[in-house]
Formats: sequence, C-alpha cells, structure tokens
Amino acid sequence: MRVLGIDPGLTRCGMGVVDGSIGRPLSLVDVGVLRTTSSLPVWERLVTIEKGVDAWLDEHQPDAVAIERIFARSDVSTIMGTAQAAGIAMVCAARRGVPVALHTPSEVKAAVSGNGRADKAQVGLMVTRLLRLDAMPKPADAADALALAITHIWRGGAQNRLEAAVAAQALKVGAHK
Amino acid sequence: MRVLGIDPGLTRCGMGVVDGSIGRPLSLVDVGVLRTTSSLPVWERLVTIEKGVDAWLDEHQPDAVAIERIFARSDVSTIMGTAQAAGIAMVCAARRGVPVALHTPSEVKAAVSGNGRADKAQVGLMVTRLLRLDAMPKPADAADALALAITHIWRGGAQNRLEAAVAAQALKVGAHK
Repeated sequence: MRVLGIDPGLTRCGMGVVDGSIGRPLSLVDVGVLRTTSSLPVWERLVTIEKGVDAWLDEHQPDAVAIERIFARSDVSTIMGTAQAAGIAMVCAARRGVPVALHTPSEVKAAVSGNGRADKAQVGLMVTRLLRLDAMPKPADAADALALAITHIWRGGAQNRLEAAVAAQALKVGAHK
Repeated sequence: MRVLGIDPGLTRCGMGVVDGSIGRPLSLVDVGVLRTTSSLPVWERLVTIEKGVDAWLDEHQPDAVAIERIFARSDVSTIMGTAQAAGIAMVCAARRGVPVALHTPSEVKAAVSGNGRADKAQVGLMVTRLLRLDAMPKPADAADALALAITHIWRGGAQNRLEAAVAAQALKVGAHK
C-alpha cells in the first residue's frame, strides 16, 4: 500500500510518501515540505497548504493519508495553525474518498523505534534506516511525515481489521434490537 | 455591503448574512446553522462544513466573510474542532477571493451592545433589535453569526481604510529604500 504521511504545520508542513506492507521492505516514494510565510494572513497560508496537499494527492495517488493527531495541550503559540493545517489536509483527502487516519506522536515513535518516548533524532535515524536512505531527511518535519506513513503501513492493517470487526458487531447488535 | 458571518463549530456552525453599511439600517438576508453529527469522523464533518459554507457563498455572494477569531485558551474539549471548522470556512472564502476578517468575541459584543463583556442573551437581544426581527434567532450560534456580520459592517470600513493606509505607507517606505 502507498501512504502519504503529513506532519501538519502552517510554516512547515512535512509530506512523505512510502510504499510498503507488513513484513516486506518499505520504500521511499517522495518526501518534502510545504512552506508558507508568516507575513501572509492565515487564510492565504491555508489555501497554499490546500493546493500543496492536493498536488501531492494528484501526483502520488496514495491508498491512505496518515496525519499527526493534534492535542489541545500542545504548544499553545502554534496550536491553532497546526490544527487548521491538519483540518485542511483531512478535507483534501476525505473529499476525494482517500481514507484518513490520525496517529499520535507516541504511536509514531513506538512504531518506528520501539519507544513511545523516543526523541526526534532517534525517529529520524530509524526512518533513515527503515527506508535505507543515505542521509536523514531534513527538516525534521519531513522525517516525521515519513515516520507517520511507516506507522500507518505497520499499524494500518491491524487497526482496519479491528474497526471492521467493531462495525460488523455494532450492525449485528443493531439488527437484534 | 453584504457580509456572511460565521460562528465556527463542528457540531453547530452558525451562519448569518446581513446587508448594510455604516449609518444605514441593517437587513437580514439569511440565517441558519450547519450541523454535523459527532458519530462521524472529524474529516467527514469538516467536508460537510466545507460543502455548507460553499453553498452559502454560492447563494449569497457576500462581499466579505467575518469569522470569530478562536483563541487557544478557549474551551479545550471542543477547541480543535472549532479551530478546524474556522480554518475550512476561511479557505472556502479565500480561494474564491472573498475577503476574510476575524473578529474576537469581545469585539463583537462591544460592536452590537456597547459592552465587550455582554452575555449571550444581550447579544441575541441586540441582534433582534438591530435587524428588526420578530423573535431572537435560535440557536445562539445563529444569532452570534449575525452579530459577527453586523460587527464587520460597522468596523469593516474603518478597519479596511486603516489597512489600506498602512499598506500604502509600507509601499512608500519600501520605494525609498
């Protein structure tokens, strides 16, 4: 499966596309960063991010989009812009029917490094190894986007099967009422 | 001028369109609420809001969109969804070139009631009077959207003239460098 990972942000929005499936080697398809300047009003910056995400979806046709789950208790100075960039990215995927998944930072750290409290350097190092790259992707937002895509490939299968089972069970319970 | 006011929210997004200009009577064009159900994933709810905002923009062709400015210190349980709904509304307007303005809750309260700390009932009452309505628009989100539109009509002119003057001055300073 091909996954577009997005590390949302208004100034730098990390984008990473990875091909792979559980138990097989992963491969890097593309990695980069969408940038917007803080001198523009937030709505113009969000439109730029929308165009950028749409362009990545057009070019790479991912099977799923994995976005970092944002918490209200995160860094307050940038949290609103980050939440809005994540919202735009979700809408870009959802309106064309591409499945969306949110993964928390600790899920991502645990998936790629085995440690939910790993630091940025460790995540970057593991992304470099897992994708067999010559150098660590920079900036950190780009590496984080790839880590999100890898997390989704490795967790995606199990999570989707669980959700399908829960939905099927809910349907059964509903039918018996 | 015609202004679409939006009181952003994921469960209820207040929408209100007002025609008017400074020193002349205001008139209600349309008012309502976009609703999404909390049983759907956030990205589907955001797509529903996007479609709703686009439909209001298509129908009413406003000269400007006024959206409540969201602060990170607001109610934490709903702040992420509110911020994302506001972000989508901004993008819907900005990508078609409709000017966007953000007004704080206290700016809105001060504009319609003269008191920046007025309560919801007082804002609703003033909206009802200013638009000469038979009854207070409900729910409160709808009345708040109308209050945002009225605020923009009353503040918009002065604010736009100030911004134009600042931009012209910046251009002059830049030209002399």
